[in-house]
Amino acid sequence: MSAGIDALKEALPTGAWTQDPDLIDPHLREWRDKYFGKTPILVTPRTTEEVATAVKICAAHKLPIMPQGGNTGLVGGNTPQDEVLISLKKMTAIRDLNTTANAMTVEAGATLQSVLDAADEANRKFPLTLSSQGSCTVGGVLSTNAGGNHVLKYGTTKELVFGVEAVLADGSIFNGLTSLRKDNTGYDLSRLFLGAEGTLGIITAASLKLFPKPGYVQRALIGLESAAMAVSLLEAFRAGGKLAMFEVMPEIGYRAVVDNFDGIRDPFANSHPWYLLCDWEVETEEEGQSIAENVIGKAFENNQVRDAIIALNETQAADILSIREHMSAGQKFLGGSVKHDITVPIDQIATFFKRADAAMQNVVPGCRPVGFGHFGDGNIHYNIAQPEGSDREAFLKNWDALSQPVFDIVDTLGGSISAEHGIGIMKREDLAERASPVKMKLLRAIKSALDPDRIMNPRVMV
Amino acid sequence: MSAGIDALKEALPTGAWTQDPDLIDPHLREWRDKYFGKTPILVTPRTTEEVATAVKICAAHKLPIMPQGGNTGLVGGNTPQDEVLISLKKMTAIRDLNTTANAMTVEAGATLQSVLDAADEANRKFPLTLSSQGSCTVGGVLSTNAGGNHVLKYGTTKELVFGVEAVLADGSIFNGLTSLRKDNTGYDLSRLFLGAEGTLGIITAASLKLFPKPGYVQRALIGLESAAMAVSLLEAFRAGGKLAMFEVMPEIGYRAVVDNFDGIRDPFANSHPWYLLCDWEVETEEEGQSIAENVIGKAFENNQVRDAIIALNETQAADILSIREHMSAGQKFLGGSVKHDITVPIDQIATFFKRADAAMQNVVPGCRPVGFGHFGDGNIHYNIAQPEGSDREAFLKNWDALSQPVFDIVDTLGGSISAEHGIGIMKREDLAERASPVKMKLLRAIKSALDPDRIMNPRVMV
Repeated sequence: MSAGIDALKEALPTGAWTQDPDLIDPHLREWRDKYFGKTPILVTPRTTEEVATAVKICAAHKLPIMPQGGNTGLVGGNTPQDEVLISLKKMTAIRDLNTTANAMTVEAGATLQSVLDAADEANRKFPLTLSSQGSCTVGGVLSTNAGGNHVLKYGTTKELVFGVEAVLADGSIFNGLTSLRKDNTGYDLSRLFLGAEGTLGIITAASLKLFPKPGYVQRALIGLESAAMAVSLLEAFRAGGKLAMFEVMPEIGYRAVVDNFDGIRDPFANSHPWYLLCDWEVETEEEGQSIAENVIGKAFENNQVRDAIIALNETQAADILSIREHMSAGQKFLGGSVKHDITVPIDQIATFFKRADAAMQNVVPGCRPVGFGHFGDGNIHYNIAQPEGSDREAFLKNWDALSQPVFDIVDTLGGSISAEHGIGIMKREDLAERASPVKMKLLRAIKSALDPDRIMNPRVMV
Repeated sequence: MSAGIDALKEALPTGAWTQDPDLIDPHLREWRDKYFGKTPILVTPRTTEEVATAVKICAAHKLPIMPQGGNTGLVGGNTPQDEVLISLKKMTAIRDLNTTANAMTVEAGATLQSVLDAADEANRKFPLTLSSQGSCTVGGVLSTNAGGNHVLKYGTTKELVFGVEAVLADGSIFNGLTSLRKDNTGYDLSRLFLGAEGTLGIITAASLKLFPKPGYVQRALIGLESAAMAVSLLEAFRAGGKLAMFEVMPEIGYRAVVDNFDGIRDPFANSHPWYLLCDWEVETEEEGQSIAENVIGKAFENNQVRDAIIALNETQAADILSIREHMSAGQKFLGGSVKHDITVPIDQIATFFKRADAAMQNVVPGCRPVGFGHFGDGNIHYNIAQPEGSDREAFLKNWDALSQPVFDIVDTLGGSISAEHGIGIMKREDLAERASPVKMKLLRAIKSALDPDRIMNPRVMV
């Protein structure tokens, strides 16, 4: 290995690599302290060519590589164990922004927030928002096909990309950057890198799709009897494609937030079993109020809702969203949690809860399911909090025992064991066991074709 | 070869294959009579399993296969030259239609029209319309990533697909059917088959995305001074994402239609150098009229338009669309045509015309460019009609001499030499010569990984 490391140090300019433990340390720590890693060298290229140089040397010496963005991943795919760590954090340029083509070309190390800001300044919307948007990077969100709250209207990250520039496993540079909406010249190569978690190459830049800014965003918070009732509202709430957010929270998770965080208060007088948060993107405030009053009014008539608040100004809208944004953080008040990020077909959400809630009680009686999230996409963050008063560490030892029945139910219902966080290290065995043999054969065939020596993030995904 | 053919005849049920020349003949003729083929056997499976059986036998005997849908392709990818011809035309079932998930699972041989009808009956929209929709099939439009008039709002076919079922080159069945909007468990395998022109496997079924039906479609036809003027209107005409069609026609092509077809008349009193046809998808007729009057009124104030007709009823709207739909057919009145289907970045459309029109005159003085189509996507059907009074056959011998300068200009401007028709036989050499070596290496690596013996449509694309 050391000959390869020496070659890297020789070929790369000063400042494009380090072996200083203090500088490397933050790159080895996962923010939840779930993973801790090690690396012989941290490479921080400033250009695509420097990435290519580094990869070529690693290829020649068969050194494994892990690419890293904002280090905010949730499945262990960003914590090295002896891989050469290539951080894209110095490649932050916005290379181009074209409002006629509604396209923006940006380097992999740019934070999502910087992309959102640049689009906003150009009077455009880039419709991807995540709680980590201040630190997560374009390369990371593309490599993990991140989701978020706007998938319902705009799709996952994959749908927001025209093409990518990527350094392949042999160090060659694939240039798929484009703003063309139509290009039928071969397989969709850029798409292969989206959600590939760095196992096929390193994304160094991407051309992203921009959208018109909505004139007004109307928000509402609704108290409901059940998760099934939320699903029953979806069709009417779509309002001809104007629905842009459809987030659901159970009482236990909602209360953990509103009862514990300073500055967050419950806008309702009474508690409700479930809560629905929605946004409609419209032209004018008047149109927003009219849609919200109309669809919520009809839902009241049908006895589908218990109570509702239609946001009347930006402060109220921000306060409501803040509850949803604190859902993950709020769970710490419930003790330890075993977390799942799953999808089921939308019309199977109620069935999923019925079966999964029962299965969880069989494994750990008294445990408290907190299933919240993007129900409009069928995506449930199905987290299981420890029984009240029980031992945190003892409970967390049940992670796998709780997860396997959840995954079994998901498989039976035709869902996905990873909706938006990816496979990484955490779910690699689950994928191999649960995907069909034909799917695994295809995944491995593509991996072997593009990375025959398995140097690109080799412990991850496939 | 004959042992393999015998094995096919033995393994498949009666009625699932034929060697009768009369029955095979229509499958060998391209509708424009540009290609004519031959095949040792026509296989017409009724089930995915029968497709798999046929492919397994072909794989064992290394017999090349060509899959065929509605036989409406435009680049020679559907005309066999001794390949085993597998027609999907008997697999027409709509397996499932789910309005909660807004998803529909349909077999590859179903016509696009039958999909449009089924969606319509369920009060949904499937937003792909093509002039060949009565005969083209789901498998064909997915394999060629067909475009059409609604790409501007809904994207190409690729964007309208959740996943596919496909028979791979070894006869195994990949099941990617799903209605999940979020699934981060590995590379986007279904996507690989979209636009692959049958070179990686045979699509046997697909789950398609459905959309809410617009309440009202407002149409307008506008007379313009130049193609550049059309592009200058795009931004204002988008109207917050409501613009669903933005089609442009030059005077020569427009006149060929309105002056020659019975039942089609020019709604304008005067002729204009260019014409723009647009649709807005809105809630109500009132909203449609208001948007059209507003954006067109502002364009008049800015001297961007010469004349305009806002459709006031369905008949008027249908009459206007009919002109656009006859653009291809209308060209026969101009004599022989050399045809190109290209994309350039939207803000390069005017530059493209300036350079390409001049280049064409250099090759064949007096030739008449007819560049029309989906300018909102940067997609121009840049067809070159013979000089008036010249010899048709002599002119058509200039096909390659006219095409190469067009492709050169497209490459310089960062465009695509195939926007929506694909590569097929026709542009295979152009792709190999014009794509970057890294792109060709990737295309070939994927082809080899999934079809190592090159039995899947081996003369096509890559």
